[in-house]
Amino acid sequence: MALIVQKFGGTSVGDAERIRAVANHVARTRAGGNEVVVVVSAMGKFTDDLVHLAEDVSPSRTAREMDMLLTAGERISMALVSMALGAVGVESASFTGSQAGIITDTSHTRAKILEMRPDRIREALDDGLVPVVAGFQGVSTERDITTLGRGGSDVTAVALAAALKADVCEIYTDVAGVFSADPRVVSKARRLDKVSFDEMMEIAATGGRVLMLRSVEFARRHHVPLHVRSSFTWEPGTWIVEEDPTMEEAIVSAITDDTSEAKITVAGVPDRPGVAATLFRELANHGINVDMIVQNTSAHNVTDISFTVAKTELDAAIVACEKVQKDIGAATVTSDDNIGRVTIVGAGMKSSPGVTALMFETLYNNDINIEMISTSSIRISCVLRADRVADAVRHLHHAFGLDAE
Amino acid sequence: MALIVQKFGGTSVGDAERIRAVANHVARTRAGGNEVVVVVSAMGKFTDDLVHLAEDVSPSRTAREMDMLLTAGERISMALVSMALGAVGVESASFTGSQAGIITDTSHTRAKILEMRPDRIREALDDGLVPVVAGFQGVSTERDITTLGRGGSDVTAVALAAALKADVCEIYTDVAGVFSADPRVVSKARRLDKVSFDEMMEIAATGGRVLMLRSVEFARRHHVPLHVRSSFTWEPGTWIVEEDPTMEEAIVSAITDDTSEAKITVAGVPDRPGVAATLFRELANHGINVDMIVQNTSAHNVTDISFTVAKTELDAAIVACEKVQKDIGAATVTSDDNIGRVTIVGAGMKSSPGVTALMFETLYNNDINIEMISTSSIRISCVLRADRVADAVRHLHHAFGLDAE
Repeated sequence: MALIVQKFGGTSVGDAERIRAVANHVARTRAGGNEVVVVVSAMGKFTDDLVHLAEDVSPSRTAREMDMLLTAGERISMALVSMALGAVGVESASFTGSQAGIITDTSHTRAKILEMRPDRIREALDDGLVPVVAGFQGVSTERDITTLGRGGSDVTAVALAAALKADVCEIYTDVAGVFSADPRVVSKARRLDKVSFDEMMEIAATGGRVLMLRSVEFARRHHVPLHVRSSFTWEPGTWIVEEDPTMEEAIVSAITDDTSEAKITVAGVPDRPGVAATLFRELANHGINVDMIVQNTSAHNVTDISFTVAKTELDAAIVACEKVQKDIGAATVTSDDNIGRVTIVGAGMKSSPGVTALMFETLYNNDINIEMISTSSIRISCVLRADRVADAVRHLHHAFGLDAE
Repeated sequence: MALIVQKFGGTSVGDAERIRAVANHVARTRAGGNEVVVVVSAMGKFTDDLVHLAEDVSPSRTAREMDMLLTAGERISMALVSMALGAVGVESASFTGSQAGIITDTSHTRAKILEMRPDRIREALDDGLVPVVAGFQGVSTERDITTLGRGGSDVTAVALAAALKADVCEIYTDVAGVFSADPRVVSKARRLDKVSFDEMMEIAATGGRVLMLRSVEFARRHHVPLHVRSSFTWEPGTWIVEEDPTMEEAIVSAITDDTSEAKITVAGVPDRPGVAATLFRELANHGINVDMIVQNTSAHNVTDISFTVAKTELDAAIVACEKVQKDIGAATVTSDDNIGRVTIVGAGMKSSPGVTALMFETLYNNDINIEMISTSSIRISCVLRADRVADAVRHLHHAFGLDAE
């Protein structure tokens, strides 16, 4: 008998029919002799509707009250899922994040889990019930309701799976799993049966939209196997597991793309220590997340520093750069929001010297210019013109032998 | 400086504009030098929408999950009201029933308050905040979320006012207060400035729709002055207060009407002890609330017992009666769902002998036949044909001098 945590996202509980389908699937899983803990998100666009209502009510909204408001969404879906389970003969009880013992810090709207005390969930399991837990929410050390930020329901599921020592955490969504590339870009993209945590983290960090980096990190740290799968077909999806040292790894598993970022170049900077520290401290002080950073030293004792930020943070980033431009002696601050990034990810890459060369050749052969390069041991990212990104993904997908038959 | 509990019903927080109006009113009350605790219901028809969704999801719904579901409604409105208060410069924090320390028994969907521990509400007041509390909900001794049943938000407000020793509990609604008769029936109905708890209980019990009997009882027991008023005009409404023995009371304060009940007659019952007990025990065992009961003894050692029940419970009541019909030796069980009740209420009635006579004469003079009569010291109710109820109310309103100039 396995203990399985099943997490259902917003589209998976989007209406009464979907909720009944979820209940049927949980019943099937139970009939297979497993214990099940269900974690749910808010229904479809319900959270968005609440946000609009809040904006209509007040121009300023405290984070504490936003959390109180938004947690109503999971409360509704968990009660409905529990009722639907009753209708198919599965005894269950729903629990808020607070009742499930998800203790967080006091950072409203982006709280971090400090401790898990899932005593009531364990009791419910011991009583033969299926506990249905609200995702995304917890209770702070100050006894206030908190939310875990974007992707928070996945984090709830993984944290519960870890605390309950579940055999697997299943993440149900509206796609069939993790693909070798975005199927909307590459028609021949294949669903991956299995990827390692390291690969999944690189995929999540560079444009894979199925899982947030944070929940993958959490799962890796707590050794929780993840299984990403569809709540529409209910077929097996992609397993995200520890690397198996006895297996030969695929050289390249997936090609990802991301056009949500813009590039800033701080040019003509005197090449002396402390310059980069000053610049990126200022950006951090503005709360701006910097992604890729590339610095080219030059022969003339001046250097250019380029980096990427989310397009939504571009204006703020430019302000921050201009604030320190004089201090660091930079000649110019320029930006470009017409870029995109293509990344190849593969755990086998580290032992395969020709990968980099094949990537650059493939882009060159298709007249695609590379503007920035950044690498890790299992990833190579290139920044390109935004309008060439889709082409680049398709050519690389083919070149690395990922196309489905 | 007074401490005022202000309760806002569903129509008072029905949309963003109404919520902003509520915030403005709370700000005005604070500017007048008062402390304020706000209690809110769910927005407009939101709770009804949730009930329909639940019915769509599952044919059977446990009471525990219904409570979990429905409490989402107040959570949304309290967060929105708190945000709206922020927008007009009033610092506030919202609290669930559980956070407000409303401890109930475990009777889901109709829980009773066992204890109030409003420590966090007191702390919030001491910190200069306006606490915004979810009406209708509490937490059970088993740590589950409960709801207080119909009119539950009023009960929350009164219980908080009692526990906090508030100076007044203001109940804001979509009417201007308590009227001498239903203004939809009697165009000359007047808003009452003041009624006693006893009168208000009779009004609530016999068809007055503004307050539920339960919250009036609670307020009387805990000596909480109530003030029912409009959240649309914000003008003073009706005070419900302890009887003032030094004041001369109005002989008749209000005429109420109720056409939601049906009559059952169990006829030809042998006139021996224990018959009524058997009949009404059986009805109680079926969970049926009986309202008026009239029994006529006859010269022939048989008697007829008539009583009224809610139309919604009529079928179940007939089943219960037929079950004991043989045991008690009744000849027939008949029902009539075409009846209505007219009631006159007045604390001064007990010392005014002519009231009964005037009521009956008025009905007789207008060709309205009386089918059942029931009285208390401050109330006389008559059952009539349903289609004569509105006429009866208008004639009585005029006869007892209640018509507005």
